[in-house]
Amino acid sequence: MHRLEAHRITQAAFARFGDLIAASGAAPDLLINQGRCGRFHDLAALDIIGGRAGISLFQSETFQPPFRIEMLERHPLGSQAFIPLNGTPYLLIVAEDRGGVPAEMRAFTVAGDQAVNIHRDIWHGVLTPIGEGTALYAVIDRIGEGRNLQEHWFDAPLDVTFPA
Amino acid sequence: MHRLEAHRITQAAFARFGDLIAASGAAPDLLINQGRCGRFHDLAALDIIGGRAGISLFQSETFQPPFRIEMLERHPLGSQAFIPLNGTPYLLIVAEDRGGVPAEMRAFTVAGDQAVNIHRDIWHGVLTPIGEGTALYAVIDRIGEGRNLQEHWFDAPLDVTFPA
Repeated sequence: MHRLEAHRITQAAFARFGDLIAASGAAPDLLINQGRCGRFHDLAALDIIGGRAGISLFQSETFQPPFRIEMLERHPLGSQAFIPLNGTPYLLIVAEDRGGVPAEMRAFTVAGDQAVNIHRDIWHGVLTPIGEGTALYAVIDRIGEGRNLQEHWFDAPLDVTFPA
Repeated sequence: MHRLEAHRITQAAFARFGDLIAASGAAPDLLINQGRCGRFHDLAALDIIGGRAGISLFQSETFQPPFRIEMLERHPLGSQAFIPLNGTPYLLIVAEDRGGVPAEMRAFTVAGDQAVNIHRDIWHGVLTPIGEGTALYAVIDRIGEGRNLQEHWFDAPLDVTFPA
């Protein structure tokens, strides 16, 4: 398969790869601040081995179609959450692992007010903001020593397509 | 003191209360993704006692001046980070603790692409997005049982002013 069709992310479709952190469509778990604020509680399974969770910023170039995927990476020691800070939507490629190789690959488009938490050991593409200018994301991931990055390069690049 | 002047947040002025999580003005600690993304590494001191860090969403009403502060709260069991998800700036009131009472109170305005991590036990106002519509923030704070909220109500409300 050298083509991969991207679809709008949903909680159901993304659940096997991670957590979609979005307020849309659900009632809050708790009302706070005298009823003026809703708390959607504990939306991501942070999973950090041999280190601690921390907050970093990723400031990235933006990208435009066509999107060509040559490599996926994964983090064996921790989950990784991406929270858009300036509203830039992004393309998210994820895959499960089958004996050290990506399998069941999926492409999702994520809105600029939606965050995701990619589970530990799930293969994913590098951060791919879609649009113009510079994009900024808060990243919640593992802070610590150790080898926490594995890469898988494809024999042939993969083209991401978008349904008409 | 019944008036408090708000100023644009800076790392230096906020350091005694928490961490300003912003990319502006600094070079990244690390270039990743073949040079196309800068990582500003480990910008917040997460400090969680007797629980674990988690990601929640706060969906809040917005507010317009005049701002009147009647109460500050603090969390004795954990730090609390606010990450704007739809670009809404916010007003941040913070204070140190002196024997169970807020002291050295400060008011900051924070831009919609800046996050903050309020340190454990630092007094702060409730989330106060400035503008129109509904504001959305990712919140990184303590998930767990136990009494993690204290409130301090002022005898007289405090008016926040903005320099001309």
